[in-house]
Amino acid sequence: MAKGLLIVLSGPSGVGKGTVCNELRVRMPELVYSVSATSRQPRFGEEHGVNYFFKSKEQFLEMIENDQLLEYAEYVGNYYGTPRDFVEQTLEEGKDIILEIEVQGALKVKEKFKEGVFVFLLPPSLDELKGRIQGRGTENQATIDHRMSVAADEIGLIEKYDYAVVNDEIDLACKRIESIIIAEHCKVRK
Amino acid sequence: MAKGLLIVLSGPSGVGKGTVCNELRVRMPELVYSVSATSRQPRFGEEHGVNYFFKSKEQFLEMIENDQLLEYAEYVGNYYGTPRDFVEQTLEEGKDIILEIEVQGALKVKEKFKEGVFVFLLPPSLDELKGRIQGRGTENQATIDHRMSVAADEIGLIEKYDYAVVNDEIDLACKRIESIIIAEHCKVRK
Repeated sequence: MAKGLLIVLSGPSGVGKGTVCNELRVRMPELVYSVSATSRQPRFGEEHGVNYFFKSKEQFLEMIENDQLLEYAEYVGNYYGTPRDFVEQTLEEGKDIILEIEVQGALKVKEKFKEGVFVFLLPPSLDELKGRIQGRGTENQATIDHRMSVAADEIGLIEKYDYAVVNDEIDLACKRIESIIIAEHCKVRK
Repeated sequence: MAKGLLIVLSGPSGVGKGTVCNELRVRMPELVYSVSATSRQPRFGEEHGVNYFFKSKEQFLEMIENDQLLEYAEYVGNYYGTPRDFVEQTLEEGKDIILEIEVQGALKVKEKFKEGVFVFLLPPSLDELKGRIQGRGTENQATIDHRMSVAADEIGLIEKYDYAVVNDEIDLACKRIESIIIAEHCKVRK
């Protein structure tokens, strides 16, 4: 049986990665979603193995030590990461798995997993991205400026990716990602 | 404006290149089809620039001399070839162009046009291909054996191609080719 593909969907904050993934879930029910490990406490209704793999801090540090994470980061005192096992097991079963992740994390995954398909989700324009970030209405001007500057830097890393998909319309963006997955399965491996 | 893509659709005789192309014409009306040049006489109803670019033998030999053909071949005393001009002009206009061609021709095109997207159309199996060739009912056993042996050799050249598309169902095969074209447009050029 042919192995599955790891698709890494990344892009600046505010570009719509989550929205695109939710729509892909509907369009491609056969696609498996990577589940992160975290050392934070489960919240009400969160299920182990569905929302996260919940680990103690000690367990998480051990996973880092044993190279069992494709990437990880610390955020307000808790660890978050992508367990390598779950990804590799899914691929061995011949299923495709998608990982939605911010840009720095994606590049760390690339170091450990070159055979992944790296997709950068782009806003139609920087102005459009600014509009989306402002539209949330929750950020002050300094934060917006900072996020825009981070986004511009991240877009500068696009050449480390295999594909760039413009998120102009959710349907079109999903169709492009679906097409990339189909095409990658048709690639002649040399 | 971004340049278009040259898609070269190839594969063994009997695999269904023509049928797939006819269906693609319906599904992707924006796709331009490469028009061959030939030194043979026009048949009733054939139009210059639509079915073929009709050339005298002298004109054709001049095109060869001036490297104006991406490939050419002689067949029962007439020349057939792919004019480079028409392909390049279409690409410059930002349009995609598809070239349906047998395997030897495709590999000659690849020598002159590496940036093309080379798609090999595969039968679901060699048995299935044999069935399709026999199904026409026009060939004797020796011819069938010869064509099967040529097909097997051609399939051995698949690694010179970028993509392999199995023509199991016409709809699926077309969807795969459509996906390859969409994905190629999303590729990050390095």
